[in-house]
Amino acid sequence: MSRLNELLQQAGNIGRNEDGSITRLGFSEGYFQALELLKARMKEIGMQVETDPVGNLHGVLPGSDPEAKAIVIGSHLDTVIKGGVYDGMLGVTGAMEVAARLKDEGRTLRHPLEIWGFNMEESSILGGTFGSRCVTGMIDPDLPGYPEKLAKFDCSPEKVKAAKRDISKYECYLEYHIEQGDKLDNADLDVGVVSGIVSVIRYEVTAKGMSNHAGTTMMVNRKDALVGMAKLIVAAEQRARELSDTLVFTVGKIAVSPGQENVIPGQAVATFEMRHMDRAVTDQFYTDIQALAKEIPNCEFEFVNTIAKYSTPCDLRLIKLIDGVCTEKGIGHVIMPSGAGHDANPMAHEGVPIGMIFVPSVKGVSHQGDEYTKPEHVDIGADVLYQTVLKLDENGL
Amino acid sequence: MSRLNELLQQAGNIGRNEDGSITRLGFSEGYFQALELLKARMKEIGMQVETDPVGNLHGVLPGSDPEAKAIVIGSHLDTVIKGGVYDGMLGVTGAMEVAARLKDEGRTLRHPLEIWGFNMEESSILGGTFGSRCVTGMIDPDLPGYPEKLAKFDCSPEKVKAAKRDISKYECYLEYHIEQGDKLDNADLDVGVVSGIVSVIRYEVTAKGMSNHAGTTMMVNRKDALVGMAKLIVAAEQRARELSDTLVFTVGKIAVSPGQENVIPGQAVATFEMRHMDRAVTDQFYTDIQALAKEIPNCEFEFVNTIAKYSTPCDLRLIKLIDGVCTEKGIGHVIMPSGAGHDANPMAHEGVPIGMIFVPSVKGVSHQGDEYTKPEHVDIGADVLYQTVLKLDENGL
Repeated sequence: MSRLNELLQQAGNIGRNEDGSITRLGFSEGYFQALELLKARMKEIGMQVETDPVGNLHGVLPGSDPEAKAIVIGSHLDTVIKGGVYDGMLGVTGAMEVAARLKDEGRTLRHPLEIWGFNMEESSILGGTFGSRCVTGMIDPDLPGYPEKLAKFDCSPEKVKAAKRDISKYECYLEYHIEQGDKLDNADLDVGVVSGIVSVIRYEVTAKGMSNHAGTTMMVNRKDALVGMAKLIVAAEQRARELSDTLVFTVGKIAVSPGQENVIPGQAVATFEMRHMDRAVTDQFYTDIQALAKEIPNCEFEFVNTIAKYSTPCDLRLIKLIDGVCTEKGIGHVIMPSGAGHDANPMAHEGVPIGMIFVPSVKGVSHQGDEYTKPEHVDIGADVLYQTVLKLDENGL
Repeated sequence: MSRLNELLQQAGNIGRNEDGSITRLGFSEGYFQALELLKARMKEIGMQVETDPVGNLHGVLPGSDPEAKAIVIGSHLDTVIKGGVYDGMLGVTGAMEVAARLKDEGRTLRHPLEIWGFNMEESSILGGTFGSRCVTGMIDPDLPGYPEKLAKFDCSPEKVKAAKRDISKYECYLEYHIEQGDKLDNADLDVGVVSGIVSVIRYEVTAKGMSNHAGTTMMVNRKDALVGMAKLIVAAEQRARELSDTLVFTVGKIAVSPGQENVIPGQAVATFEMRHMDRAVTDQFYTDIQALAKEIPNCEFEFVNTIAKYSTPCDLRLIKLIDGVCTEKGIGHVIMPSGAGHDANPMAHEGVPIGMIFVPSVKGVSHQGDEYTKPEHVDIGADVLYQTVLKLDENGL
């Protein structure tokens, strides 16, 4: 087993549950235990290492040119509840493998190499990509209610503000991650060169009918909000399939009220989430959903937009660079969008050119204990990352 | 306003919420306050009154024939959360109006007249129709867990056992109730003569798919349990409408797991409830639902029967008797099933002949603050009840 795969498995044992899955939430004891493991290893490699004010791990390998901007590589150290070994941790340990190889080979880069192991990228009450949004200065920690939320993690607005970095000194941000989908695995490819991160557009949809007695109200007189919502879910799901192969549509939450076995639901509330690289497609889909809703009898629908993160393109130069590395090495690869959000989003949002490297997730499984990426793919992705860094150091962006 | 309507409104003011609805749960302070109000009034009428060991109100007007069985009239004193004035209370005050009229007119019946104001007919952790099931001896209070539940209401297995009556001395049981549906109101009729109480058949239905990332899992690769469940709800609802005009089908509860906006539901659980007078219809419907489920792709369904209360017919002689009273008085009426369960169910279950009288619920609204029955209908129904009692006393069943 390679050094990288060993480190990855060692980190994976922190926060391990009885069923084999890993729960290593941001700010948890396990989180900081994993952080300390990596920190010690980074020191061994000769990096300057610190834990920043919001619990991000940060390491620097100084470059030879004091004028050169930093090549930054990062991902996150936290997992979801009952998550897996690879999501996040692969990118941080993969970045460390780059630094370790530089040391092995006695190379000093012209550019500083910075590595981030971000805190709390996964969903939480602080919002996703918490650590990287602190670093890029995207969080206003004084918003009403936010200080109280921070306090739950022994954090504060002052710490959030202190975590902000001068990212104008970043040449670019690279992230190495598992695909979390099944495109690469199905196509038997080794690497995905990410073209961009798809949008996340989310609505809270409310169906309003009329609550009534489930025994005495005849079917012809009903205004059943759940039946209306079920019709809309079925119709929208069908429409999503027709509209684009790469459009995804998910109803992940649903609740009815009053929610009793013997009462017709008067209201049903559900989340409608759609993702695609092209805004025109999600705009069209939303228009279609509204039209479908109008055709459903005995029910009024209301739509409230709750999230509108439009797609984030990767830097074209970085796409070409990574694509070139793969071609040169004869690695089976494809240029593809990322269906999930990443710490690269806040970086791109604040103007840092981003590039991402994916390796296959077996059967596309992610956010679960049986999330798995083959050891050879772990190493191939890290090698592509290493070669990309060398080329960037040589030629710049 | 008639004496009966006045008493009904007075009782309705006990447990009144700010929005006008009434919350007078079984065993609550408001419940016993209402019970005491009626008890005092029953004493004024000259009845022998008591609160039984489980909080039922019980009154007796002795008859002249020591051999004659009792004519029993009852309903319940509790409401649901945010219920209305009429559900339950109409039947108890209506029965008291019968006793009051007997006194006004100086009549002594040959049969004893017994009135029950039952406790906790509405759904609770003790199960519905609690008070009447105690009286008829249908509850085994020693079942594991049940004593602890009783204790929450300062009740006990001993009290439940002590509440059992010798119902072999009951000639019949009459219940006067609001329809809780909109059949009478729509047809502009004054009285419903109940033919029987429909079944309640309930299943817990589980759809099993596969949970996965909502961004990275393409539509063609999904096994979305909620989409499968939505398809089954839509298909089953359509089938219910085709199968019989009087079959009702309700999905009142639904839950998905993991229940996150950005995760495809791997499981959806819902309650499927069906009611009809004819068992063949509900059996056919359940068979059809299972067949529909088999046609739904990417999803496995499991069905667990949780309730199977088959329909309860009213006594044919009582149906004819009440029908005759209405015809004689020129009251617009219809013979119809009850879609809801009542305290009459346990009575019938234990062999007491039952008869029920319905009056219209405006727009069929029930279990809500705006539950309403016109004052004239309140009086018409009570008069039908009175005339029925007189005929029963004269001729027996």
